[in-house]
Amino acid sequence: MKRKEIKDIRNIIDKCSSFIVASHIDPEGDAIGSSLALYFALTNLGKKVCVYNESPLPKILKFLPGSDIIVRDIYSPDEYDCIFIVDCGDIERVGKLSKRLEKLRIINIDHHSTNTSFGHINIVDRQAAATGEVMFNVLEELAIPITKEIAINLYTAILVDTGSFRYSSTSSESFLICSKLMEYGVEPWEVSKNIYESFPFERMKLLALVLDTLEVFMNGRVAFMYVTKEMLKRSGASEDLTEGFVNFGRAVEGVEISVFCKEVDVDAYKLSLRSKGLIDVAQIALKLGGGGHKNAAGCKVRGSFSDVKEKVMAALKDYEEQILLTK
Amino acid sequence: MKRKEIKDIRNIIDKCSSFIVASHIDPEGDAIGSSLALYFALTNLGKKVCVYNESPLPKILKFLPGSDIIVRDIYSPDEYDCIFIVDCGDIERVGKLSKRLEKLRIINIDHHSTNTSFGHINIVDRQAAATGEVMFNVLEELAIPITKEIAINLYTAILVDTGSFRYSSTSSESFLICSKLMEYGVEPWEVSKNIYESFPFERMKLLALVLDTLEVFMNGRVAFMYVTKEMLKRSGASEDLTEGFVNFGRAVEGVEISVFCKEVDVDAYKLSLRSKGLIDVAQIALKLGGGGHKNAAGCKVRGSFSDVKEKVMAALKDYEEQILLTK
Repeated sequence: MKRKEIKDIRNIIDKCSSFIVASHIDPEGDAIGSSLALYFALTNLGKKVCVYNESPLPKILKFLPGSDIIVRDIYSPDEYDCIFIVDCGDIERVGKLSKRLEKLRIINIDHHSTNTSFGHINIVDRQAAATGEVMFNVLEELAIPITKEIAINLYTAILVDTGSFRYSSTSSESFLICSKLMEYGVEPWEVSKNIYESFPFERMKLLALVLDTLEVFMNGRVAFMYVTKEMLKRSGASEDLTEGFVNFGRAVEGVEISVFCKEVDVDAYKLSLRSKGLIDVAQIALKLGGGGHKNAAGCKVRGSFSDVKEKVMAALKDYEEQILLTK
Repeated sequence: MKRKEIKDIRNIIDKCSSFIVASHIDPEGDAIGSSLALYFALTNLGKKVCVYNESPLPKILKFLPGSDIIVRDIYSPDEYDCIFIVDCGDIERVGKLSKRLEKLRIINIDHHSTNTSFGHINIVDRQAAATGEVMFNVLEELAIPITKEIAINLYTAILVDTGSFRYSSTSSESFLICSKLMEYGVEPWEVSKNIYESFPFERMKLLALVLDTLEVFMNGRVAFMYVTKEMLKRSGASEDLTEGFVNFGRAVEGVEISVFCKEVDVDAYKLSLRSKGLIDVAQIALKLGGGGHKNAAGCKVRGSFSDVKEKVMAALKDYEEQILLTK
């Protein structure tokens, strides 16, 4: 972390008395956890802090200390001295508020490789597995005391963004930071229970229906599952509860690519693609009009269910040789 | 860790040339990972080492470096100078071999709170989340170099026994050790992919059938699911693939106790009970003739399915007040 940036932030914190902390729309644990950690850090210094997120707070994050103070609208951002934007690759990710920040000093704290350095001060660590890690290092450099509230929020940020320390982004430093955070009183099971063991009953019923549709293709290398509006109705589950289902296909032995197909409208399907690491699914999603990352991508395809399935299979066909080569 | 024990082990390693490393029957990642780590540590010192486990190696552990050298029988244990017994609370956990060790020096390395100190030398750290942690500390104290093979085995041991760093046993030290292990070349995703994303296709089909049976009782505090022989047949899955299914019940919001009921014979059912932490399920299992730990217990109950379900409900009924009090 560059000394100059830290010095600049220290100066701003010393001089200013009120701050906005904003993160990206459709937030997850990293966006919210990093924001709330900063909220506690600044309020503990006697500052006035407003935590902003345009989207509703996901239910599973309501256990986070401070989660009840997040606002979804700010009447006059100009009344604040400075804004921290956390976990956003570009400023538009903040949503509508991004158009109303002309008069504010912007501090950008992030870990996305695509970060556009949109801030007046930019602390972007592209090696970090989560913005929570970057935030921990910033607070440590600023010598701001870590409290239990801060620790729980940062731990959750890292836990969620590393997929419970499973993804390849997980580094030696991720573990080292969590080791330190635990010294401040984090209880891993209390966090994990809220994040991974608090699913609505209806989600399990929907999962039963979706797993029933699981098929594998191309010598067992490709898994395919789907959900229809009728299945949502039958299980009583809302559409957002399919989050993570695509991973059940990938978790099958031998599967390299998992495809999950969700009916979102009449003759319109949203596809999620996941790779175990050997095939770049962003390329396949791109062929279907979407995009994403190497291991997680998506697209929206129009047509009847059988049309859509055929289009997906055709897109995969172009990679058949490569897919069959994965052992 | 006591200096004397470490000194004694150092002397034994210096003096002896051949070792057995044994762990408990029905092993998981901690038993096998700790054993194989010690195997590499000793062979790198030029020692002859035989790794023993009575049970077949679980398929998901075959990716572990060294897993192909494990034997299930030893013709004459007396030909070895010393045996390390790892991850065993008592010596009988080793299985049949435990009756043939009279002439051997026994070194006991473990983390179970119930450990009976059965060795001539005992290194038992009851605070450790996994024997893998104890083994790491032993190797570090002995100044035996950690190689990538050792690191992958120890990392897997800790990963599995902490439930991917989720269980309450996970400590600051667990994270610190994993941070160090990563410096030796562990790739978290490579390990997690093998442990958590290598399930047989049939397991997913069986999961669909089992989730379809999910019910909740007592204001949503108790989840109940079952599997029959017919369901196994229909999905093509073997009985062992139900491992972990009970956790899907516990993962429902509001559920405090999850019960999974498996038909094992005509009029005989095996029950698994899991708690989120507020109710001691070992007490409930005890009432039904079984036992276990506070958060994970089990028992075998005879009778028709409806008899068995009734017995379980009756046993739970005794705790109804306590269960309903969990928020």
